[in-house]
Amino acid sequence: MICEPTLLLDEKICKTNIRRMAQKAQKFGLTFKPHMKTHQSAEIGRWFKEAGVESITVSSIKMAQHFAQNGWDDITIAFPVNIRQAKQINDLASEIQITILVTNEKSIELLNQKLQHEVNAYIEIDTGGHRSGIKVSEMNKIEKLIKAVQDSKNIRWIGFYSHPGHSYQAQSKQEILEVHRSVLNQIRRLKNNIEPVFGPFQVCIGDTPCCSVADNFEPIDAISPGNFVFYDIMQYHIGSCDIKDIAVAMECPIVDKYDSRNELIIYGGAIHFSKEADTTNPLCYGRVAIQKENFWQIADDQTYLKKVSQEHGIIHCSKKYFNNYNIGDTITILPIHSCLTANLIEKYHLFDGRVITQF
Amino acid sequence: MICEPTLLLDEKICKTNIRRMAQKAQKFGLTFKPHMKTHQSAEIGRWFKEAGVESITVSSIKMAQHFAQNGWDDITIAFPVNIRQAKQINDLASEIQITILVTNEKSIELLNQKLQHEVNAYIEIDTGGHRSGIKVSEMNKIEKLIKAVQDSKNIRWIGFYSHPGHSYQAQSKQEILEVHRSVLNQIRRLKNNIEPVFGPFQVCIGDTPCCSVADNFEPIDAISPGNFVFYDIMQYHIGSCDIKDIAVAMECPIVDKYDSRNELIIYGGAIHFSKEADTTNPLCYGRVAIQKENFWQIADDQTYLKKVSQEHGIIHCSKKYFNNYNIGDTITILPIHSCLTANLIEKYHLFDGRVITQF
Repeated sequence: MICEPTLLLDEKICKTNIRRMAQKAQKFGLTFKPHMKTHQSAEIGRWFKEAGVESITVSSIKMAQHFAQNGWDDITIAFPVNIRQAKQINDLASEIQITILVTNEKSIELLNQKLQHEVNAYIEIDTGGHRSGIKVSEMNKIEKLIKAVQDSKNIRWIGFYSHPGHSYQAQSKQEILEVHRSVLNQIRRLKNNIEPVFGPFQVCIGDTPCCSVADNFEPIDAISPGNFVFYDIMQYHIGSCDIKDIAVAMECPIVDKYDSRNELIIYGGAIHFSKEADTTNPLCYGRVAIQKENFWQIADDQTYLKKVSQEHGIIHCSKKYFNNYNIGDTITILPIHSCLTANLIEKYHLFDGRVITQF
Repeated sequence: MICEPTLLLDEKICKTNIRRMAQKAQKFGLTFKPHMKTHQSAEIGRWFKEAGVESITVSSIKMAQHFAQNGWDDITIAFPVNIRQAKQINDLASEIQITILVTNEKSIELLNQKLQHEVNAYIEIDTGGHRSGIKVSEMNKIEKLIKAVQDSKNIRWIGFYSHPGHSYQAQSKQEILEVHRSVLNQIRRLKNNIEPVFGPFQVCIGDTPCCSVADNFEPIDAISPGNFVFYDIMQYHIGSCDIKDIAVAMECPIVDKYDSRNELIIYGGAIHFSKEADTTNPLCYGRVAIQKENFWQIADDQTYLKKVSQEHGIIHCSKKYFNNYNIGDTITILPIHSCLTANLIEKYHLFDGRVITQF
């Protein structure tokens, strides 16, 4: 019996999402290096292995350590290298193939002093997300960085990485494809300028919207999306997926009911869902769903998680759905951002009773 | 050496916050039942015990179990009772004094069928927060609930509880005091109506803004604030505290630096800080601080955590502070909502090198 906020995982939908992306990568001749930050689980990692995946992407050294302990031996740490963890990087590199992201000469210089084992390095490119990375227009800076890497003893330059985070601003497939076309154009410019001087290199991009929607990846070599393993309401609004592709849902006890305002109080708050609100509705922290035979379906537009405090949630309901729920029942809610919800709950309940834990 | 996002705890400030609130409660003849959800730590629980605290408040059964295992024997679970956890409540009630919150007859009826051990019950009052609880104006409903509790075998009615969550909307001491006056008026009305029929009862209120600022609590009997143990930027903006009262700060490695936009990239994102933004600036997830001898000081208004993705943070800096920070340094950031940040990090680094863990 579900007594507390519980993250349900539909294994079938999840495995379909994995297989679909693996087949897409294969079809377009791309290396598939899925990002594991969304699920952070050894078992779901095995589902990727079953789909033929050999190299993976993570967002922290800690995650790299966990996956290395679970048999993965080719891991990209898609985060501007943190030189305060040089020792941990070196330890990992003594055992498996590690690829880091570099964005500045200072980190390369400091890291090079501390490494005794070889690591691969992507130079991170800012294709429009404006988080980290060098712009393609800063060609001098890029060339200096390649040289700095090539001059260092234990860092081997293999190419470029970009997370086109601005695809998360899209609100339709069309807008995602516009971002993607702009990314491809930037990568072409990079190839045209860099290849004649430095020879061939790899390019890896990693965002769920572009990887889900695009059907042209040339001249990209590898993709590293992560969220697609579960998808969520945010990706649905962006245009990356349908509701029936969402593989996780929260199941929460209803503890109170207020007729005067059509609201339910649930056990389930910010420490379960996170405080990530819907981009299309800043007062929505999740959408109430109904379990159908093989997927979830959104209840209706007026039935959603409207407020979260530490452990409480307030569900606003349409008249129709309000009458369906009673104190002591549970209610199903599709999360806005599955990565953050999964990170908080740390385990997944499958329909056959199995429980999969994060590291 | 700090290698990853680390939550620093200034033991002296924290103990001062505890002592100040304990003394205030004593001065006004109030029972002090501090809420432990903010820190969730056995060790910090002991600091409360040293300040004379005997009964505590928590927000979940799980938290009650942890504190019970650490010697606390009088615990209020300040959450509308979740009947799906009736067994766990009964188990706790067999060992210690448990007080639950009731808000509806259905829960009382269902719980009563399952309890073999006596629990105390507060009826939760909605004094304006509009989360859970019954309005003071709904006197019939309140009377029916008291009777329902009194008719049940193992639930003993002891009074009323309210979390005036609307004090979190305040933006000055003055506005907090307006909320507090309204709460006191509602409690007086409750006393005038209920006491003649049902005899004397206790009233407990539990919000950090009112408990921090008010200097009149009559006719309240007990207080259960929680956040004051650490305070944070949100409480500073509400008017509950000064910056020098904030007891926790995040220390994060700087991994990248962008001159063109005066921005630093830090290792520290939504899974460390939470996605709670500043109410006065929805694009601020933390304020950069400078360590002074006995407290932290805010750097300046233009220097703050402006964006968080899963593990990355972007710090926007004023020109002055931008030049002070380099790749490989760490930076200190005061969290917007310390409860959520502490819940994510799960441990505290003290200045003397000790590390305190959550449960």
